[in-house]
Amino acid sequence: MPSQPVDLDQLFAPRSVAVVGASTNVDSPGHDYVRSLKEFGFPGPVYPINPKADEIAGYKAYPSLSAVPGEVDLVISCVPAPAVPALVEECAGGKARFLHLFTARFSETGDEEDAALEARVMAAAARAGVRILGPNGMGVYHPAGHVAFRPDLPQQQGSVAFLSQSGNNAVEVVIRGNARGLHYGKVANYGNGQDLTPAVLLDYLGHDPDTTVIGAYVEGVPDGQAFFRALRKAAAQKPVIIHKAGRTSAGARSAASHTAALAGAAEIWSAAIRQAGALEARSQEQLLDLIIGASLMPLPKGRRIAVVGGGGGRSVQSADACEENGMSVLPLPDPLRDQVRERAPKLADWVGNPVDQSILAGSGLSSNGLLQMMIDSGHYDLAIANVGEDWFFGRPDAESRLRHACERLTSIVQASPLPVAVVLGATENRVPWQRELVDSVRDAFIDAGVAVYPTPERAAFALGRLVTLNA
Amino acid sequence: MPSQPVDLDQLFAPRSVAVVGASTNVDSPGHDYVRSLKEFGFPGPVYPINPKADEIAGYKAYPSLSAVPGEVDLVISCVPAPAVPALVEECAGGKARFLHLFTARFSETGDEEDAALEARVMAAAARAGVRILGPNGMGVYHPAGHVAFRPDLPQQQGSVAFLSQSGNNAVEVVIRGNARGLHYGKVANYGNGQDLTPAVLLDYLGHDPDTTVIGAYVEGVPDGQAFFRALRKAAAQKPVIIHKAGRTSAGARSAASHTAALAGAAEIWSAAIRQAGALEARSQEQLLDLIIGASLMPLPKGRRIAVVGGGGGRSVQSADACEENGMSVLPLPDPLRDQVRERAPKLADWVGNPVDQSILAGSGLSSNGLLQMMIDSGHYDLAIANVGEDWFFGRPDAESRLRHACERLTSIVQASPLPVAVVLGATENRVPWQRELVDSVRDAFIDAGVAVYPTPERAAFALGRLVTLNA
Repeated sequence: MPSQPVDLDQLFAPRSVAVVGASTNVDSPGHDYVRSLKEFGFPGPVYPINPKADEIAGYKAYPSLSAVPGEVDLVISCVPAPAVPALVEECAGGKARFLHLFTARFSETGDEEDAALEARVMAAAARAGVRILGPNGMGVYHPAGHVAFRPDLPQQQGSVAFLSQSGNNAVEVVIRGNARGLHYGKVANYGNGQDLTPAVLLDYLGHDPDTTVIGAYVEGVPDGQAFFRALRKAAAQKPVIIHKAGRTSAGARSAASHTAALAGAAEIWSAAIRQAGALEARSQEQLLDLIIGASLMPLPKGRRIAVVGGGGGRSVQSADACEENGMSVLPLPDPLRDQVRERAPKLADWVGNPVDQSILAGSGLSSNGLLQMMIDSGHYDLAIANVGEDWFFGRPDAESRLRHACERLTSIVQASPLPVAVVLGATENRVPWQRELVDSVRDAFIDAGVAVYPTPERAAFALGRLVTLNA
Repeated sequence: MPSQPVDLDQLFAPRSVAVVGASTNVDSPGHDYVRSLKEFGFPGPVYPINPKADEIAGYKAYPSLSAVPGEVDLVISCVPAPAVPALVEECAGGKARFLHLFTARFSETGDEEDAALEARVMAAAARAGVRILGPNGMGVYHPAGHVAFRPDLPQQQGSVAFLSQSGNNAVEVVIRGNARGLHYGKVANYGNGQDLTPAVLLDYLGHDPDTTVIGAYVEGVPDGQAFFRALRKAAAQKPVIIHKAGRTSAGARSAASHTAALAGAAEIWSAAIRQAGALEARSQEQLLDLIIGASLMPLPKGRRIAVVGGGGGRSVQSADACEENGMSVLPLPDPLRDQVRERAPKLADWVGNPVDQSILAGSGLSSNGLLQMMIDSGHYDLAIANVGEDWFFGRPDAESRLRHACERLTSIVQASPLPVAVVLGATENRVPWQRELVDSVRDAFIDAGVAVYPTPERAAFALGRLVTLNA
């Protein structure tokens, strides 16, 4: 790898895009890529390439890439694998800078002829001076660049970058992350990743000033040393979270048939990720939990955690989760206990950390009030606030009480210099008004930029790992 | 502990109930207990005890327990702690069989006087021949007995028993478990649990013919040997899942202030649970995932797992999760591969286990079809089916396609002699029609009795643990 990263600015924000194998069939990828550009308001020229069509999704169609006027920054290929060598020749001589091969059925099928075709395509592209993203990948999603690999993806612009070997995993991470408050910057699904390898992409994102947090899903990398060199450099600049899959023999076998990846030993990967200063996720859920923590909250400056909310069981469970994830659940400091004594003498020697909300009833103290006092005490580095929504459902004025508590909590989180993770459950209710209420307050938290986790264990996992970035 | 379990039939299905400290204030527990009996259609006499009220929630009120005609199976106390000794005297001489003390502020406050009062109450109850559930507990929820500790809880009758030291945890497990398809039998929140200890309750449920699966949340037990004796006996009869909290020093400190529990070393508990033949959960989520597995699916007869659905990334991640949870993701057997070859020759040497749905496009084969073939092959003991809903959202006819696939999957699961866990995400979408669609197909699965998990990792965890019950 050169010491300067490969310039991928025009891959993520091309000035012009051609879609080869563009289709009038609305249920085909060859249509989706064209329509995505329309939906995302791509401002430059869009060239659907289809010799049998006049226009596709409102854009004038061209019979071949050669027939397109001038140069093209990004060519997206939806043609079958055997047609790719001729396309590469058309891209040569400066006609195209980047060729994204959505086209699949290369080395990942395990068939020798398919693998040989891939090798020929890569060699030809190198000679032609065109860089290849893919094959067997969905390509680029970058809302600020007005490009996307599916027309229905969220259009909010952000600074969370994500690399994914798998296309469906990229779609899931985008949709599910967005629903939890992530706004994405540069996202690439690189598939077999033979030319623009994960190392090349990661190196670019590490240097990219528009990227604040990087996530990556890898099954295997063709250039391990370059990858870990890029990872170390990137992790020194910003939080990087790596979800390494294909850890087991069955997972590795599946990875080979998916993207022809050689997965490698799990323990070696874990150690190398840790040594590079990045965080490891072992599931998509952990990946998202960590990215959300890194991008929606300030990084914690220490391990001393304040925990509030929910009843006694929730308190005990939260305390276990925090300590099992390496944080210290310190008792209330004496000055804070004295403050409690002034307002609720009977509680002063009983209330602890975690704050059990159920013992506060009638005291004039609330879980939110204690959270604010704990943040102000200077005694803690980070916090978890359990909403405890199930308790509210049993009260006559559940909706107004829950909304009020969540609004106050939002204000506290937004003003807090410490990271505060909010815990509110997922779809775990069959009473329509209760489900809608929880969805509604969760959406409100997320719209306010609050990091929400469905369980205290998941909040504690994310916070506990983020602590290590500053350790 | 006697060799015969304590007969708690009338605790869970009392013929008559008195609520002492019943209240006309609709925002109070003293009102909730009365209204719960009404909402759940309690068929026997209900006696609200309140010297200042004529009637509460439609029931004639009485000035004292002594003023109630005849004997009462279950007395629920909502009066303050100092009033409890007099109440115990009223219960004596056969007036009441069971006294449930919702009343709190006994030993859990850490105050010596409170602890001494609890000890006096326990001694007096023993002399009076009345058994105590609690104090500091919400008591009994048993839909088939028409009793509940909150009027808004689900009324479906079932056979899943649950014991909980914590009240809010009991409410959460009931609401969240019900939303995922659990129908509860006998549920008790025993709080400080000094007389009817977890051991006594567990011993009863182990023998109870109406109970098929037992879950328990414990922070600590006063009688460890009796508890593990009861656990071993119960686990020999039916699946038992124990969520032990208070595993860390902070968790144990919190447990002490919550229910005065002495939590004990985590490793000793884990080993003892395993030796007793029960399963350990380390979070509420794991507890529910295991109970759902044990109650909605047949127990697996071996470790050979078939995995289908979702794209390549999901396949690799599912394979990792299955092997990391002790299952074997065996390749397709030759006869099955020959069946595939007949219908899709190009796929026969490529498709694997997990079945990557994305390579099946245009082949005439589907993920559901492969699942059925794998079940029929006799080569597998259990299965995970990923729905992969995010893929559907991108298609023009997403709703009808997703519904069709889920309906077919439901039929396969219902007819399968093997356990099949379905994976479908939680609230992780901000597009209204997509969120409603996922909620709707999830509800349909659950109404059909299908076990649904939000991630392949959680499905694999539950199945991997359930395998050990038959090992």
